[in-house]
Amino acid sequence: MRQAILDQNDRLAERNRGFFRARGLLVLNFLSSPGSGKTTFIREAVRALQPQLKAGVIVGDLATDNDARRLRESGAPVVQVTTGTVCHLEAEMVGRAVGQIDLNGLNLLIIENVGNLVCPASYDLGEDLRVVLLSVTEGEDKPLKYPPMFQSADVVIISKTDLSQACGYDRETALANIRRAAPKARIFETSAKTGQGMDDWCRFVAEQHRARSARDPLGP
Amino acid sequence: MRQAILDQNDRLAERNRGFFRARGLLVLNFLSSPGSGKTTFIREAVRALQPQLKAGVIVGDLATDNDARRLRESGAPVVQVTTGTVCHLEAEMVGRAVGQIDLNGLNLLIIENVGNLVCPASYDLGEDLRVVLLSVTEGEDKPLKYPPMFQSADVVIISKTDLSQACGYDRETALANIRRAAPKARIFETSAKTGQGMDDWCRFVAEQHRARSARDPLGP
Repeated sequence: MRQAILDQNDRLAERNRGFFRARGLLVLNFLSSPGSGKTTFIREAVRALQPQLKAGVIVGDLATDNDARRLRESGAPVVQVTTGTVCHLEAEMVGRAVGQIDLNGLNLLIIENVGNLVCPASYDLGEDLRVVLLSVTEGEDKPLKYPPMFQSADVVIISKTDLSQACGYDRETALANIRRAAPKARIFETSAKTGQGMDDWCRFVAEQHRARSARDPLGP
Repeated sequence: MRQAILDQNDRLAERNRGFFRARGLLVLNFLSSPGSGKTTFIREAVRALQPQLKAGVIVGDLATDNDARRLRESGAPVVQVTTGTVCHLEAEMVGRAVGQIDLNGLNLLIIENVGNLVCPASYDLGEDLRVVLLSVTEGEDKPLKYPPMFQSADVVIISKTDLSQACGYDRETALANIRRAAPKARIFETSAKTGQGMDDWCRFVAEQHRARSARDPLGP
């Protein structure tokens, strides 16, 4: 039963992927625990990227449109997906949300998944890159304790580095654990509050968009 | 399908509940996001309660026995449940874990659920009280964004209050949101690091144990 749901999701995710490639969109799926700072990070990144890339945002939440309202402060079009009791976004929900965004002129689509470090890992949404946030307040061992999420990450963003000292954050241990759980992931150390690491991140996104634009659109 | 799983879980949860009552155990189910500080809080609470109540602990994690090792520092017997890819504990897992603890002389059973603010809310484990932790680092709006979890809470513990200032934590907003989402929940404001609020919490647990011991064991 669960497998049938995942298989169906995987098919719809590939349909999304084909659609996104035809439209020249770089698509990022942001995942993390509740309260890791996804919304603030995305809002600041969308603002900083605006001169180079125009973004649309899809945001999933069980309830409230708090995040959608905060994300709109970036100036980007934002579509809210209210999942009710569903603990993750699915490809079909993203497909329906995409239909509500005017994609003309956009070249970046950011999906903020439901805050959950377990279940969303199983659901491909058709994204190009999976971006997993880990806040310095959460503890250095989370990459080892939530392997499916970190193993599937293309990028790990360490967030809220401005709180490192107050939390007694152990940077070396955290980095070693991320490298062990997600050996191929690019790592960024950031604070959306102070701006640390945001330039590096924006450069990376712009490079990814360029590299993909130059490629066979239906290739791997 | 999902409903059948939940119905089966609810039956096994009631069996657990009957067993726990026959043994005079007060059972607490601890739930929160990853990184809210459940393990540290439980370790310190078990230590502080030792003169009055002897605890056993069951801890669920997808992977690693990091938390079980940390909890054993309290001196309490600890059983680890490794869930693999399963995002929550189920009554059956708890039933099996209970069989691995020597219950003689214990009067408190603490269950540390998988770190997840969504799915574990749907699974009764046979507990007396649901205790939901919310760290001051997670943002004041989480009770509104994760209604099933907070609506089901008997107790909400605000954790890591030592970080309030560093995070710009807005206490009044957080308390208002908790009261809105969980109007009947008792609220404790705590820091396992500084000890703030731990005495109040221990008094509450001891009272709960006394009140239940005096009651018809198969009553509501």
